[in-house]
Amino acid sequence: MAVGTTTVSKPNIGVYTNPKHDLWIADAKPTLEEVQKGEGLNPGEVTVEIRSTGICGSDVHFWHAGCIGPMIVTDDHILGHESAGVIIAVADDVKTLKVGDRVAVEPNVICNKCEPCLTGRYNGCESVEFLSTPPIDGLLRRYVNHPAVWCHKIGNMSFENGALLEPLSVALAGIDRAGVRLGDPVLVAGAGPIGLVSLLCVRAAGASPIVITDIDEGRLAFAKELVPDVRTYKVQFGKNAEENAAGILAALNDGDADAVDAIRPRVAVECTGVESSVASAIWSVKFGGKVFVIGVGKNEMQVPFMRLSTWEIDLQYQYRYCNTWPKAIRLIKNGVIDLRKLVTHRYPIEEALKAFETAANPKTGAIKVQIMSSEEEVAAATEAAKNL
Amino acid sequence: MAVGTTTVSKPNIGVYTNPKHDLWIADAKPTLEEVQKGEGLNPGEVTVEIRSTGICGSDVHFWHAGCIGPMIVTDDHILGHESAGVIIAVADDVKTLKVGDRVAVEPNVICNKCEPCLTGRYNGCESVEFLSTPPIDGLLRRYVNHPAVWCHKIGNMSFENGALLEPLSVALAGIDRAGVRLGDPVLVAGAGPIGLVSLLCVRAAGASPIVITDIDEGRLAFAKELVPDVRTYKVQFGKNAEENAAGILAALNDGDADAVDAIRPRVAVECTGVESSVASAIWSVKFGGKVFVIGVGKNEMQVPFMRLSTWEIDLQYQYRYCNTWPKAIRLIKNGVIDLRKLVTHRYPIEEALKAFETAANPKTGAIKVQIMSSEEEVAAATEAAKNL
Amino acid sequence: MAVGTTTVSKPNIGVYTNPKHDLWIADAKPTLEEVQKGEGLNPGEVTVEIRSTGICGSDVHFWHAGCIGPMIVTDDHILGHESAGVIIAVADDVKTLKVGDRVAVEPNVICNKCEPCLTGRYNGCESVEFLSTPPIDGLLRRYVNHPAVWCHKIGNMSFENGALLEPLSVALAGIDRAGVRLGDPVLVAGAGPIGLVSLLCVRAAGASPIVITDIDEGRLAFAKELVPDVRTYKVQFGKNAEENAAGILAALNDGDADAVDAIRPRVAVECTGVESSVASAIWSVKFGGKVFVIGVGKNEMQVPFMRLSTWEIDLQYQYRYCNTWPKAIRLIKNGVIDLRKLVTHRYPIEEALKAFETAANPKTGAIKVQIMSSEEEVAAATEAAKNL
Amino acid sequence: MAVGTTTVSKPNIGVYTNPKHDLWIADAKPTLEEVQKGEGLNPGEVTVEIRSTGICGSDVHFWHAGCIGPMIVTDDHILGHESAGVIIAVADDVKTLKVGDRVAVEPNVICNKCEPCLTGRYNGCESVEFLSTPPIDGLLRRYVNHPAVWCHKIGNMSFENGALLEPLSVALAGIDRAGVRLGDPVLVAGAGPIGLVSLLCVRAAGASPIVITDIDEGRLAFAKELVPDVRTYKVQFGKNAEENAAGILAALNDGDADAVDAIRPRVAVECTGVESSVASAIWSVKFGGKVFVIGVGKNEMQVPFMRLSTWEIDLQYQYRYCNTWPKAIRLIKNGVIDLRKLVTHRYPIEEALKAFETAANPKTGAIKVQIMSSEEEVAAATEAAKNL
Repeated sequence: MAVGTTTVSKPNIGVYTNPKHDLWIADAKPTLEEVQKGEGLNPGEVTVEIRSTGICGSDVHFWHAGCIGPMIVTDDHILGHESAGVIIAVADDVKTLKVGDRVAVEPNVICNKCEPCLTGRYNGCESVEFLSTPPIDGLLRRYVNHPAVWCHKIGNMSFENGALLEPLSVALAGIDRAGVRLGDPVLVAGAGPIGLVSLLCVRAAGASPIVITDIDEGRLAFAKELVPDVRTYKVQFGKNAEENAAGILAALNDGDADAVDAIRPRVAVECTGVESSVASAIWSVKFGGKVFVIGVGKNEMQVPFMRLSTWEIDLQYQYRYCNTWPKAIRLIKNGVIDLRKLVTHRYPIEEALKAFETAANPKTGAIKVQIMSSEEEVAAATEAAKNL
Repeated sequence: MAVGTTTVSKPNIGVYTNPKHDLWIADAKPTLEEVQKGEGLNPGEVTVEIRSTGICGSDVHFWHAGCIGPMIVTDDHILGHESAGVIIAVADDVKTLKVGDRVAVEPNVICNKCEPCLTGRYNGCESVEFLSTPPIDGLLRRYVNHPAVWCHKIGNMSFENGALLEPLSVALAGIDRAGVRLGDPVLVAGAGPIGLVSLLCVRAAGASPIVITDIDEGRLAFAKELVPDVRTYKVQFGKNAEENAAGILAALNDGDADAVDAIRPRVAVECTGVESSVASAIWSVKFGGKVFVIGVGKNEMQVPFMRLSTWEIDLQYQYRYCNTWPKAIRLIKNGVIDLRKLVTHRYPIEEALKAFETAANPKTGAIKVQIMSSEEEVAAATEAAKNL
Repeated sequence: MAVGTTTVSKPNIGVYTNPKHDLWIADAKPTLEEVQKGEGLNPGEVTVEIRSTGICGSDVHFWHAGCIGPMIVTDDHILGHESAGVIIAVADDVKTLKVGDRVAVEPNVICNKCEPCLTGRYNGCESVEFLSTPPIDGLLRRYVNHPAVWCHKIGNMSFENGALLEPLSVALAGIDRAGVRLGDPVLVAGAGPIGLVSLLCVRAAGASPIVITDIDEGRLAFAKELVPDVRTYKVQFGKNAEENAAGILAALNDGDADAVDAIRPRVAVECTGVESSVASAIWSVKFGGKVFVIGVGKNEMQVPFMRLSTWEIDLQYQYRYCNTWPKAIRLIKNGVIDLRKLVTHRYPIEEALKAFETAANPKTGAIKVQIMSSEEEVAAATEAAKNL
Repeated sequence: MAVGTTTVSKPNIGVYTNPKHDLWIADAKPTLEEVQKGEGLNPGEVTVEIRSTGICGSDVHFWHAGCIGPMIVTDDHILGHESAGVIIAVADDVKTLKVGDRVAVEPNVICNKCEPCLTGRYNGCESVEFLSTPPIDGLLRRYVNHPAVWCHKIGNMSFENGALLEPLSVALAGIDRAGVRLGDPVLVAGAGPIGLVSLLCVRAAGASPIVITDIDEGRLAFAKELVPDVRTYKVQFGKNAEENAAGILAALNDGDADAVDAIRPRVAVECTGVESSVASAIWSVKFGGKVFVIGVGKNEMQVPFMRLSTWEIDLQYQYRYCNTWPKAIRLIKNGVIDLRKLVTHRYPIEEALKAFETAANPKTGAIKVQIMSSEEEVAAATEAAKNL
């Protein structure tokens, strides 16, 4: 057991919710003493000092709604699954990581035995433990024990970027399975955090032209700031799915009328989970196209079945991710994708409640709120972000 | 212009419907005189003497309902698109066919210019003329002019088999795009004509085990006669989609309990177009599986969206077919697939109305009704079928 | 630790080779005493009493040549990797298997951490231990300790069939990755054991027509006995690759000349690893087709590069297998594929040397030689095979 | 027949070669008189006034070697297939183009009847007429009659860019079929024109990191100017394929050693057609990776067969292109890819011989030489290029 001693002096705390929708900070496992003594690590595990954690919409949802579909908060429960930090202890048998390594945490532990695991789709692992999905505690702690295999070295990447690898993973998994390719016309439906990350991904993948939709002008403006050549369409409540699809196509073809035939998206990346938006996406894509849903929605949903049928449109879905971290790290490290503008607010873990209120309140304009291990970390990250 | 003279003596007639849901036989184009003189063939065209034509559910639907989705009967309209016959004239520039060749008719004419045509998915041709879809007349005639490129030589195959190539094409297109592979557990939902043809196709593709569903015991029994090792499940009206899915899985795993873990279908081939059946299929397939819809249904349909999402289930559709005829001919000729048991009734064209009544009446037990060019043809085909 | 006591009374022995090309039987691990006492099982492991093991060409090659490519026999080495048997002990933590279960052994142990493992291609595991590939001992023993996860329950399947699951896995992996589909014209190059298993697989997958090649008339006749409608072509030594390809195409199109245009294979499954055969396969397949190599050959090989290029032919390869056992078990259990005719010789393990001599001698006509745990097992299997 | 009259006053000329390797300018068809009178257009055709044409390596090869594989110059033969221009006449039935439209010419005419055409791979058309491949004359003329369907509107794009769409199409077709995806580590072998265009394409597709190889330092420097973050490796003649592969991997992983495990390319895009380079690519890619060859080479080539086999490496090829023009136009119009830096030399058609000498002489440093319709066009394009 190798233990690093320099940084570890604060007691472990975590950010909790419960079935009564409380949100609070309290002591968490492993204890400071355990960490300092190097106790309690299972074979293959390391202790990570968490330095930066993003708040996901699902964290807010578990707090406010107490559940997502069949996943229900039934007890005191630690939130958070978008984290990066530094290794402060390793079990004796761990050879791939050492104390001091900077890592991003892939927040799952899998069985390696079921068909999804053995066929390379471990996000479908029949016994997966996904951190922050009840009853498995999340990462919003100072110290977490986790298998080394799920801690990915990030070199000199900032912890802020390291924590952004998780939402990037969601989008990358979707974009990859959706088969977005160089030169594909693409619709991104929704300009929330996942929509914006997806936008950056499809742009980096060479999709062109790209149109993004939202019901909020501010978000569309933000999208255009991120990707200047994206075309935007504000969804109209008074219009039905076919009519909004017509508007989407007009925006997509903007400026091309002189030279090229009107085109339709080959792929729509649906990031709202809203029934009307899914329907508009289906009415937008071309014959043989694809509507690829990243995100969650109602248990039951109405879809334009005959349009899907007569236009041979594939309706596909992404659930979490697998095998994305190495790729995500490469893309951030090599500057192909830069998500830092998405971080609109930063708080130290002691102010985690304020962080959640900010993330939950649409009026704050928050895109991605990150919780960091200290005031100093917040200050430094804020300073670094000024240069973006 | 090469014209064959031996068989052509009867005036051309066709089987019509109209917006008032009439069904009648009347004179049709090209006229006997035009055929005999070899007039009216466009470059690239041939005249086919139609010898056998199957009645499709869509033919009955156009007659009874006057439309399928956006395709509406607005005038006198000839039905039929499952036909085989013999070449009796060819345009001067046609080199690939000659008088006397036996052919199956692929009932479409495409533009060769739009993206679907140029990318090998000509079923999505933006200017397709699909015979029997209004306003394009169908094949239920004695003589039809058609491009040579869409008349496929069938050698010494019977015209009955030749006419079965069209429904086989529908299923083959679906099975191919659905990616059914050797050893895949497969659900076929629905034991109507397309369900039964799909059953034969997935069996021929090595799917195993296979379970088929229907609401009718008789059809399930027929399915078992066709494919003895198929497992069957009678859909229960009193049960919801999840409950029927549980029944489907029990049937699929029948007899395997001792040795192998319970399995789920990798692919469900949905041939009913019924909302509850689609939902059951979605609840049945495994993580990462696929529900592949062949056939039509309501314009709007409710689907279990979150199940699709959290199990990464692909929902895909087949619309008509493309590039299936050569493969279908090989499979029939080489005996890999035998559809002849599906032909339950045969009528000469003069009795076409009786044929349609039989096809439209569930009490007749009709699976596939064929209309042949003469009493003699009916008698011979009936005799040949006794040996099956 | 659960231990079964009934059958375990013979000392453990194994079939060895070494760098000097000796072949002998000697004591092996685990010892009878260890097995009886239940000692030495690691967590997750079981002890399998091996009941039937097929001899693979690679076993003979390790004996005769001492190596396959970079895999070199450097010490006393136990052969064999095609085995089935019965569980006689399980480690305490094993819940999925119990004493008495009949299993087939998947002869590999993987790391679950490298990219190939996590992406579902564990045959490429960077730390794989493949039993019978030096320095990992093989399965030709009475008792073997092996992880439970790699012992697949086979229910009441015979051990003979259970041992055939391994060569079936090789072919299934290849056929699956090669994308052989219903109605595909297919060439199988080579009618040795892997060629014949591949033939049965492509036939079961609905390929049609199929042509198989070999340099030996007897093997082609045997292929025709297995699959009566296969077409055969005897490779001519005096002909070059293009000329042999012409012969292959003539055989493939035999009898179709009247009705359908000459066709070429969409996929060639190359099971010889011989340069001239690979070249003939490349010259045979159609534009956009695929030559899929299952098996090994020279380190360096000449290929018709410009033909590959101007015909856009994919050249792909199979290395071992992954995720094939469950599918293979289904196909055998459900009778979709029957490999039993391939077993031409059976010997008890005490006569293993005779078994290897038979397998190594072309004059014996041996296709698959199996080594069984006793004279009685051989007698029973021989009797059962009479009914084929 | 609509004819435009303003620009058409010069007699038609073409750039010819012959079996004696002469290169000269002479009169060409259609004649000025035919063009002015609107004579000789077949249905569906238009007359294009060619304004800019790039010289391809194959043009030089036909001139110097008289053949490429089975394609042989047997008579006076006009070169050139990378062209853009303006419509000056259209046949009566042409509705999609009008006089004055700016177009890029896709230099092929297909049959629309064979299997490759109908399945969306018309580059394999069994009756293709590819302009500039003997005996079909090329586009290095003032006026050319061509089917409207193969003239793609380019709006206000420059003719220089319009002529670059053809080499871009080659690379796009390859990149698309090779499946290069966002975040893939990629090797581009060869920094000639196709290698450089491929480099820009894989970069635009989000590949990262990318390493490019060549035997010439100058070309590598040029690659780095085009794509600053590309990593480069100068191929060493004294090293064998494995050793050069080691160098490629070292370059690919440059600077990542601290954070991430060494990676291998998932795809190698091979643009040299040289045996040793193909071999190095095979030794470089990862298990399950792909070597994708764009370009031509020796008829027969030695490949490391066992490495391909034991690492399951796919060897695939691109031949010309299909369905790439619309995508290529979008990518250039939208600024996703910019090829203009590749145009190193421009000549008016009257100086075509000088243009060919420049293209053929390695000492000129020429990457892409374009031949334009007039001195003025050359001057304007040269001026515009100063701003790059």
